Amino acid sequence: VRRSYWGWGYEDKALSERDVEPLARLAHAAFGASPVLAPIPPLEAYDVPAPSFSLPRTLERIATRDPAELVRHSCGASLKDVLRKLTTAIPRPPDYVLYPEAESEIEAALEFAHSHRVAVVPYGGGSSVVGGVDTDGEWRSAYSGVLSIDISRMARLVELDEWSLAARFQAGVLGPAIEEQLRPYGLTLRHFPQSFECSSLGGWVATRSGGHYATQATHIDDLVESVRVLAPSGILETRRLPASGAGPDPNRSILGSEGTLGIITEAWVRVQRRPAARARAEVSFKDFLAGAKALKELVQAGFRPANCRVIDDVEAALNGVPSRGALMFLSFESPEPVVDRLLDSALELLAANGGDPKHEGQRGGGSFAHYRESFMRAPYVRDAIVRLGLVTETFETAVTWDRLDHLVHAVKDKVPKAIREATGKDGLVAARITHAYPDGAAPYFTVVAAGGTTLSDNVTIWEQVKQAASETVISHGATITHHHAVGRDHVPWFVREQPPLWHRTLGSLKSLYDPGRILNPGVLGL
Amino acid sequence: VRRSYWGWGYEDKALSERDVEPLARLAHAAFGASPVLAPIPPLEAYDVPAPSFSLPRTLERIATRDPAELVRHSCGASLKDVLRKLTTAIPRPPDYVLYPEAESEIEAALEFAHSHRVAVVPYGGGSSVVGGVDTDGEWRSAYSGVLSIDISRMARLVELDEWSLAARFQAGVLGPAIEEQLRPYGLTLRHFPQSFECSSLGGWVATRSGGHYATQATHIDDLVESVRVLAPSGILETRRLPASGAGPDPNRSILGSEGTLGIITEAWVRVQRRPAARARAEVSFKDFLAGAKALKELVQAGFRPANCRVIDDVEAALNGVPSRGALMFLSFESPEPVVDRLLDSALELLAANGGDPKHEGQRGGGSFAHYRESFMRAPYVRDAIVRLGLVTETFETAVTWDRLDHLVHAVKDKVPKAIREATGKDGLVAARITHAYPDGAAPYFTVVAAGGTTLSDNVTIWEQVKQAASETVISHGATITHHHAVGRDHVPWFVREQPPLWHRTLGSLKSLYDPGRILNPGVLGL
Repeated sequence: VRRSYWGWGYEDKALSERDVEPLARLAHAAFGASPVLAPIPPLEAYDVPAPSFSLPRTLERIATRDPAELVRHSCGASLKDVLRKLTTAIPRPPDYVLYPEAESEIEAALEFAHSHRVAVVPYGGGSSVVGGVDTDGEWRSAYSGVLSIDISRMARLVELDEWSLAARFQAGVLGPAIEEQLRPYGLTLRHFPQSFECSSLGGWVATRSGGHYATQATHIDDLVESVRVLAPSGILETRRLPASGAGPDPNRSILGSEGTLGIITEAWVRVQRRPAARARAEVSFKDFLAGAKALKELVQAGFRPANCRVIDDVEAALNGVPSRGALMFLSFESPEPVVDRLLDSALELLAANGGDPKHEGQRGGGSFAHYRESFMRAPYVRDAIVRLGLVTETFETAVTWDRLDHLVHAVKDKVPKAIREATGKDGLVAARITHAYPDGAAPYFTVVAAGGTTLSDNVTIWEQVKQAASETVISHGATITHHHAVGRDHVPWFVREQPPLWHRTLGSLKSLYDPGRILNPGVLGL
Repeated sequence: VRRSYWGWGYEDKALSERDVEPLARLAHAAFGASPVLAPIPPLEAYDVPAPSFSLPRTLERIATRDPAELVRHSCGASLKDVLRKLTTAIPRPPDYVLYPEAESEIEAALEFAHSHRVAVVPYGGGSSVVGGVDTDGEWRSAYSGVLSIDISRMARLVELDEWSLAARFQAGVLGPAIEEQLRPYGLTLRHFPQSFECSSLGGWVATRSGGHYATQATHIDDLVESVRVLAPSGILETRRLPASGAGPDPNRSILGSEGTLGIITEAWVRVQRRPAARARAEVSFKDFLAGAKALKELVQAGFRPANCRVIDDVEAALNGVPSRGALMFLSFESPEPVVDRLLDSALELLAANGGDPKHEGQRGGGSFAHYRESFMRAPYVRDAIVRLGLVTETFETAVTWDRLDHLVHAVKDKVPKAIREATGKDGLVAARITHAYPDGAAPYFTVVAAGGTTLSDNVTIWEQVKQAASETVISHGATITHHHAVGRDHVPWFVREQPPLWHRTLGSLKSLYDPGRILNPGVLGL
């Protein structure tokens, strides 16, 4: 199975003309979308300039200039990226893609890049939706060329500590290969971002990815026991520890560094046995904010469900889940025999807060299973929708509970307006809450809107809508990203979110770790 | 009530000659200790040199040279500190203690210190046991003097967000005043380090303090929503967020900075309602490592008890708790009606792992209550034992489960040897586990040993024992501190624990935040 050079994931999983028929009819009826999928440009259609520098023999051995690889590595997996690939208007690809299989090769590449002023874009699964792996931009002219270093061949389980439930992986390992390598031991990492299929452990650490679970250890941050990072100025390998109070935590400076300080080559992560018991239910609410309020009461009462996703009616409809008002998917995973009690107790609390519970029992599937399947398949569906000429993308944030209602109202006001302004037509803005904390929540929005005359117009349309969305998020005290990272696309709002002294702090980390400033230029504003 | 200038806490709570009688008999019988308490030196006995610089009018208003204040602020609350105070061999006190009541006063002090090359030692509750508030050392000669900035008068609840369960406090607030100010709202922070009575929120954040609870949010790190820091080079105020994935977390660079980067003036912390239900039990095990092993199984099975402290027979005896073998204090706090079920289920698991459970029911007190009381009173008892001429101190660490047994065996071998070498007599080394994680635990050791001829000898004795303890901890892959911080005393081992590039990282943060290097010189090796 080959990775797609133009869209999400693997080529053979893309939706076919036939798969897409019902969707196409709907999209056409609702938004006047094209009834057929836009063609995928052949590789010859892309402008792939000759390399602007040559590699030393040692690096040549691990380099490729295969056009599919160059095109794929030119950017990530956002709507903008797929549109740029479908219209062949991709960022100038890297001069080479390197596939190191050993740290010594990464070190050699960093040395070469440093001494030849070549920019390096670290690449794991390539799932960035924020321009985190773009190989072109205003910055490029300051370099003699660009290397994409794809570490996906460094994907082994190096060491397993079954006693402590910790595993040392090479950082290029993708989600499924993590689980495959742990399965023989009855273990799992249980970190399931939506990008799971094509995102890497190193990428998760670099971008502070968020998993599927709604409370407790949802960010990869909490699952990282130690990291190993190759920076141009040296190696940072932190001690394996369950916890420590010895100065600021070094792992936390790497978490979120997004490839600007060094290349993460290994990490020890906390793994677990499969949970003993599960119990699930669905609860409906009159509307999204009523569901959110009940969710707040739930987590503030001390409940920590594995899942407690609240979706609004639009999100439900987009995923083919029948719903009037909002729906909460609730599940607990706990040692036996507590889990059913926990669920009963939680359902009681939710009922007192306007919820209408529908218990599904231990093995309950129902809408939840359907939604989950739809959710994991979403990136492929997204690609099809994009090829039908619609504009569809997501944005997400986190905010304290006191500001949540204002934020949601503002988004539901400003974003549809921006859609109308950009497209002349009404669009859809679906809302869900993906993660819940005692002091706040992470709302997540999906936009579906009519496209312009050509696919190229859709980049501009989305940029206008995204501008309104980001402005709304930042001006309402929320974060520009709960788990999609900053990359290059979020920099203007990231600058406003963090205090000036923090940007100077990141600048001084940059100068120390990467004095030649070769790593991922432009990301985090560095 | 006045703070003690020579020992822990408040003067009127120190043990009297009469209180101490039974303890004195025991200490005399076991270690040939003095039958009476060493006298407390009068304030006139301390060498308090004239100030080496004078203050501008604006700072004079908030300054004191009261001898009790100068003596108290010369160092912290470790065994070494109490011994130095009891023998009048204190570090040279600060030239002045400042008591700012507003940020502008701190800013003025930092400006003055920066331009006059005066060192600044930030002081919250003064509970450091690692030399974190020492006002003298080799470094002092490089400065024209030293200011201790005591922010304990900045102790207000500034803002309360009851909807999000978050509170904004001034950072000088001590533990009890936090709880007092939250109580009218039915809220609590529930962060209870042993130093609770005399440690401050700012100090907790600066040192990544560990609370009383054994799992989940035990470090203050997890309770911090945002911080406000005054650094010589500017202000860092982070956004209130429940979570974010926008670059490395700025709060995490302040957590553990131990006053070397700036003075924390405020923090938003996550508060909670009192837990709905509690259930407790005690479980005995044949020995400490059997208890530790069962604890490992418990947390790895997904249980997250509020408490699951394992104490060995020596620790039990020292606290007057009857025990053969080891004892686990187990408690759950959960939404009703799950808590009893959880406890039953946990007890079943522990029984299968060699535990002998003794259920105490919801309101159970018993040994646990006794132990807890003894634990919270321990600092005062420690002072009495020190005045009887014994050497008693603690050290603590955290380590992954795979190394725990080796570490405990090594400590139980090396530390008693070091005690014999230093004192010529056998001592006691008590062990407990204070915090448990799926991948490891935090063991905590208490040493009681005979003293030398004079109290001054005891500093050297402890330094020899501590040297052996720290060496053992670091060479067994553990951390030099789980929650006591690094200060000045732990620097040699901190240097070995963290990778060289991390020390350079801290150095570059230091240069950025405090270019004049006036803040807490020597702490963290900076």
